[in-house]
Amino acid sequence: MLCVATVCAVALVPLTLSAADDSSPIFGVRIPAGYRRWELIAPSHEAGGFNELRGILGNPVAMQAYRDGTLPFPDGAVLAKLAWKREPSTEFEGAFVPGRATTVQIMVKDSKRYASTGGWGFGRFIDGRAVDRAQHETCFGCHQANVKDHDYVFTRFAQ
Amino acid sequence: MLCVATVCAVALVPLTLSAADDSSPIFGVRIPAGYRRWELIAPSHEAGGFNELRGILGNPVAMQAYRDGTLPFPDGAVLAKLAWKREPSTEFEGAFVPGRATTVQIMVKDSKRYASTGGWGFGRFIDGRAVDRAQHETCFGCHQANVKDHDYVFTRFAQ
Repeated sequence: MLCVATVCAVALVPLTLSAADDSSPIFGVRIPAGYRRWELIAPSHEAGGFNELRGILGNPVAMQAYRDGTLPFPDGAVLAKLAWKREPSTEFEGAFVPGRATTVQIMVKDSKRYASTGGWGFGRFIDGRAVDRAQHETCFGCHQANVKDHDYVFTRFAQ
Repeated sequence: MLCVATVCAVALVPLTLSAADDSSPIFGVRIPAGYRRWELIAPSHEAGGFNELRGILGNPVAMQAYRDGTLPFPDGAVLAKLAWKREPSTEFEGAFVPGRATTVQIMVKDSKRYASTGGWGFGRFIDGRAVDRAQHETCFGCHQANVKDHDYVFTRFAQ
């Protein structure tokens, strides 16, 4: 019976996340525990091919910085962008609501660890698994090109 | 000097909210303290004339009900819909972000107090002040016509 149990355990391995899957390439960022309960910084709508509704959430360190207007964000600030396909509501004409979840994207502020990318580590996840290295190579360049003056963060606090 | 102080106090009254302004007609619903820190249930997009992005938040009673799938919502559940004008991002092509705040809309579950409107009290606020009675007369009819089977609540939890 012990042998049977061992076989079962091995057979299950491919169904679970490996360490490589649940942390991002380059940055080693993981999806933080409890992030879905964080406060809303702002919603957004990504049109075009994305066609997504998004909710950008912040951990307590990030929210305090937003409310105080602190820039750059302090170490320990973490942002989570949750994205869903944007679908027409079947219950209210003209309204659009979240469909299936697409990505969860995480930014972690650690000015020493991520000194070469503005102090931010990035992680992009689909179904809980980090996407490939090539996608992570584009994160900082885009943030640097567009929002360098807001500590490389796109989202503003929606009062 | 006492007379001068009295005059000042009277002069300030028009600048503060009266009891009629900060609670809704018909329902007596007020904007709950601390609602901006509540968890996100879901974002939404209202197209057409509204052209708004919205974030619908829930108090702890409401969030527990959403996570447990409890219907009808228990007494004490409160939902807050925050709306902002939807504006194109100046920093990322194809993205839309919150502009100026437009309305805050509150639903309060109290099955006894609001028995004639599905157990829900409604409040619609602009700049912290409740809108007029005529607007509040339309709330329940619309919720009843469209989402009676979801305890009169449009918003679903975006996982």
